[in-house]
Amino acid sequence: MQNSNLQIDRAHFTQMMDEVSVFGATPAGGLDRQTASVADGEARRWLMDIFQAEGLDTLIDPVGNMFGVLNLAGPDAEVVLTGSHLDSQPKGGRFDGTYGVVAAVAAVRAVKEAISKSTLTATKNLAVVNWTNEEGARFAPSLLGSNVFIGKLDVQSARMAADAKGVTLGDALDAIGFAGTDKAPKKVHSYLEVHIEQGPYLEADKKSIGVVEGNWGTAKYEVDFHGKSAHTGPTPMAERRDPLLSTAELILFVRKLSDETDGQLLSSIARIDVMPNSTNVVPERVRVFVELRDTDGPRLTNARNRLEDKVRALGQNDIRSTLKCVVDRPAGEFDENLVALIEDVAKAASISSMRMRTVAGHDAVSLAQVLPSAMLFVPSQDGVSHNEAEFTRPEDLHTGADVLAGVLARLVVADAVDAK
Amino acid sequence: MQNSNLQIDRAHFTQMMDEVSVFGATPAGGLDRQTASVADGEARRWLMDIFQAEGLDTLIDPVGNMFGVLNLAGPDAEVVLTGSHLDSQPKGGRFDGTYGVVAAVAAVRAVKEAISKSTLTATKNLAVVNWTNEEGARFAPSLLGSNVFIGKLDVQSARMAADAKGVTLGDALDAIGFAGTDKAPKKVHSYLEVHIEQGPYLEADKKSIGVVEGNWGTAKYEVDFHGKSAHTGPTPMAERRDPLLSTAELILFVRKLSDETDGQLLSSIARIDVMPNSTNVVPERVRVFVELRDTDGPRLTNARNRLEDKVRALGQNDIRSTLKCVVDRPAGEFDENLVALIEDVAKAASISSMRMRTVAGHDAVSLAQVLPSAMLFVPSQDGVSHNEAEFTRPEDLHTGADVLAGVLARLVVADAVDAK
Repeated sequence: MQNSNLQIDRAHFTQMMDEVSVFGATPAGGLDRQTASVADGEARRWLMDIFQAEGLDTLIDPVGNMFGVLNLAGPDAEVVLTGSHLDSQPKGGRFDGTYGVVAAVAAVRAVKEAISKSTLTATKNLAVVNWTNEEGARFAPSLLGSNVFIGKLDVQSARMAADAKGVTLGDALDAIGFAGTDKAPKKVHSYLEVHIEQGPYLEADKKSIGVVEGNWGTAKYEVDFHGKSAHTGPTPMAERRDPLLSTAELILFVRKLSDETDGQLLSSIARIDVMPNSTNVVPERVRVFVELRDTDGPRLTNARNRLEDKVRALGQNDIRSTLKCVVDRPAGEFDENLVALIEDVAKAASISSMRMRTVAGHDAVSLAQVLPSAMLFVPSQDGVSHNEAEFTRPEDLHTGADVLAGVLARLVVADAVDAK
Repeated sequence: MQNSNLQIDRAHFTQMMDEVSVFGATPAGGLDRQTASVADGEARRWLMDIFQAEGLDTLIDPVGNMFGVLNLAGPDAEVVLTGSHLDSQPKGGRFDGTYGVVAAVAAVRAVKEAISKSTLTATKNLAVVNWTNEEGARFAPSLLGSNVFIGKLDVQSARMAADAKGVTLGDALDAIGFAGTDKAPKKVHSYLEVHIEQGPYLEADKKSIGVVEGNWGTAKYEVDFHGKSAHTGPTPMAERRDPLLSTAELILFVRKLSDETDGQLLSSIARIDVMPNSTNVVPERVRVFVELRDTDGPRLTNARNRLEDKVRALGQNDIRSTLKCVVDRPAGEFDENLVALIEDVAKAASISSMRMRTVAGHDAVSLAQVLPSAMLFVPSQDGVSHNEAEFTRPEDLHTGADVLAGVLARLVVADAVDAK
């Protein structure tokens, strides 16, 4: 399909965004739609209805990944997969993940109509996907559904992941009726995901499309500091073993690791679980969640080594420390043919684009380990994300979905590009 | 009653401690019996049965304070009140508070029996009290029940105090059936409370009884640092407004305030509420709970001023800070006549004692604002408290209750001591 200047149906896209934003809506205009919550169940049922209305066959696997398959080329043909996730942070925005699912539906419809009006024959099928628990806010690890799909995480372990209250993902999915028995599509040709940038660069450079050529390296840790619980009143200071002091030192140290690279290494501690977190009890334990990200492998390795040394040093004297690496995702590349295809489609439609790398984890980063994969970004207003104020202008959302449709069209009918 | 060498019934005391320790028992041998929980309801029903068995008239006021009144001198006589609290920290010990209630029952029984076997006439009544929400672990403020009793907190505000899930104390008390309609006893002559020391000094000095002559000054604050939530991945470091960095600086600063006094000023931050406390979201707000305690007024004032300056300084640039003083309890004195009486009773029974000051808040500190009040401490093994491993030897528990009984006996029948 050489003319890949497709346009999605704006009214249909807007209606879908409006409808899905109701499920888990917060008063401040954001979302609280954590994995397998009541609101997530509502959003999933809505998506099933959409799949049916669009003529997509619904498949739900045992960890709740939802696929809507459009049969264009017969049951034995390869499938081009596209989508994102409907789960959100506890106080997340309306676009993160949701946009990628809605845009996928709109793009698949546009491709289907374009083919039906042409003399071309599709050689591949299309499928829309909603991955389970991308955010990792309720259940760890994040990217859970896509990691099951690529075989890196087994179904049983994934279903045993427990939330803060001890509810397992399996039980939570059962409760909302979304633990399926279907197998995910096989013979997947490639994966495309459109997402909001969640950073400020597209807006700053006045570009409509970010062509994501790869991902930053990421290391995430859980650090435990063990002290001894004691009354904050009568216990003499010299007898206290307070793990929050070690925590405070680590927070400042982790920031320093980044400052020393002029901010090129991204570092954060954003979650701290204090036990028992009572005003008048010196904590017995603090669990600290550390993230380090960098495009530069050796610089990331250096930061990791220094972090590990620091945790060891803080674990001397009266505090015991342990460190567990829970995510070790090396910097990686997306499929160069797909990346170039996205650029081509944008250029042919006179849409401005720039290459970039994703810092955040995305399901596409998981998929890239086993399949040709790539991502498109659209601008985030003020770079704000994981925040109820997250916003992307409608015209930018439309443009991203248009380019996605064009890329899907070229993949399912053309021989000009082989993403393999 | 000049011979005040009373002894409580050991077997009865032990049976009561064993029975009450079941409600909210944790696997590690401690308690999770937070205010108005199911376990607290069970312990309260148990205490009502005890009151009945001991011939005490039960009164329950609208905030759940429970009184068991022993009529020794007729309805118009003054009442000597003694007790403590049955609520615990989330991972608390079996002795904190509970001991004072059980010892009060045992001591009241001993006094009643001693009088019935003598020719003496009581001129005052006795009452055992279980104060609601002393710990403040589930509902703020701590010392809630006793502050309502002394008129410092109104019933309506107290009942509106909400826990972390938004459940109010009033609703929680209604649910367990302990929001009463009785009035608390009037004409209260004095208040005595026996408690574990929760510190190491009695054990170190090999003393059986701590005669508490007063309380340390205490200031507690809630400090809020407001930043801006953002994705920990793509957000450039320079654009992050991370309130956990301010929190870390404050934790170390608050410790330094104490270190500079060689630990004479006690300081702590033990609870931190991070919003949203998600691994990959720079927090939008952190609430930090600060406690400062000192026997020395000017030193405490100096620390408070420096804390307030520091919070202001940390609230510059991209972080906004607010500070609210939630407890401002000046160092205070217990009733000197009662303090001397406790010493006398111990000395007459050849029980070793030493004077000391309570660092922790206790209901007796509230009561002392309006009534002659005093406290007795018994040793805490290794000074450990607010910890499931909290322990006091049975013989020390018995001795404390014996001295309490002796003091109560002298107060209800003797004219030798006037605590007013």
